[in-house]
Amino acid sequence: MPGKKTYSIPALKRLPAYLRELRRLRGEGVARVSSPILARALRIDTISARKDLEMVGVTGSPGVGYSVEQLIDGIETFLGWKNASEAFLVGTGDFGRALLGYPGFAAHGLKIIAAFDRTPPPGEETIHDIPVFELSEFRHLAERLNIRLAILCVPEEEAQQTAEYLVDCGILAIWNFTEHTLHLPEHIIRQRVNLGGDLAVLSVKLAERLDELDNDPDVPTASKGKP
Amino acid sequence: MPGKKTYSIPALKRLPAYLRELRRLRGEGVARVSSPILARALRIDTISARKDLEMVGVTGSPGVGYSVEQLIDGIETFLGWKNASEAFLVGTGDFGRALLGYPGFAAHGLKIIAAFDRTPPPGEETIHDIPVFELSEFRHLAERLNIRLAILCVPEEEAQQTAEYLVDCGILAIWNFTEHTLHLPEHIIRQRVNLGGDLAVLSVKLAERLDELDNDPDVPTASKGKP
Repeated sequence: MPGKKTYSIPALKRLPAYLRELRRLRGEGVARVSSPILARALRIDTISARKDLEMVGVTGSPGVGYSVEQLIDGIETFLGWKNASEAFLVGTGDFGRALLGYPGFAAHGLKIIAAFDRTPPPGEETIHDIPVFELSEFRHLAERLNIRLAILCVPEEEAQQTAEYLVDCGILAIWNFTEHTLHLPEHIIRQRVNLGGDLAVLSVKLAERLDELDNDPDVPTASKGKP
Repeated sequence: MPGKKTYSIPALKRLPAYLRELRRLRGEGVARVSSPILARALRIDTISARKDLEMVGVTGSPGVGYSVEQLIDGIETFLGWKNASEAFLVGTGDFGRALLGYPGFAAHGLKIIAAFDRTPPPGEETIHDIPVFELSEFRHLAERLNIRLAILCVPEEEAQQTAEYLVDCGILAIWNFTEHTLHLPEHIIRQRVNLGGDLAVLSVKLAERLDELDNDPDVPTASKGKP
């Protein structure tokens, strides 16, 4: 691992979309790509795309663009995705189960190697081929396998207590799929899937849009918003 | 609906967390709350919390703080969550199924009233009590029920084509759970759940943290990162 990286969070969040597009191009036999083409695929402006790739440390040549292969390699190295990160998942309800079967994680350098639940589903030793254990076995397995990343999918009301237990077992980073804002020591890395927040943005933008349609005399009634 | 709202996206995304905390306080019989207390619950600074609540249009009184009831009402009104938004979900794979059973949406003013799939699961007329139809029925049901919001959970390779069909059926806003960057007319509202992006942030931060631990002579070997 080289020295401290400089990065911006929005740029980091875009890197998997570059990877996806670059892998698609490679699959089509494309060897070189320009920043405007990548920018268009990601629906961002060209200057941002250039900055993102500069962050990764790959430079293009004027007139010829970037090597697709070098960019893929550069992004995977930057993200540390050359070797998959191993993670444990906690909570095998509907959401946890969906994540255990999610085919996209391999492409994102993530390998879920075991799942845990306070009460594992009876008669199921594996879900989507991933072994399921009682939560009480988390500690010794995390220590033995040196797992630092956990995916938290437990019910809301168990989130805080479970997260504290995971940290106590040596977990350093938690991907939180619950709505609960976790209160944990500062050095613990947290990433939250904020479905409520997404819905808030959608609701407000959609209301605005319906309002515009209602006030636009050129829009035929049939395609207007709710009365 | 009043005139155009001014809002910031990060503030919008925090509103559901305020609601959650405020409803919890109300449940405990608390009538008033101060901005520092809300800020701490959300792990943000007090100035940001005050600005967020100002955006919603509710003002506190010096020394007494905010009325919990008024804040709940103000946020719900701001988000248009007093009346639940109705949505259709498309794609009943593992992820779609998990969302159909997700208990949190009601609290976020979302009601999924039907699900669709190119090939609905045989023998299942409902999933988690929500009726499932063939995708070909989307158009007339969307028109009849005046649905404007769709949740997209189809496989990656079907995402673009399905989204175009939904827009053609009158959908104005798409909550995109696929990894695909949708290319649609500008006026279509899109919100994407970027799991790959979250993982990118987690990977880079975790690698940094492990690096720090490896280089810290005070950390005992047992709690260090991978060799």
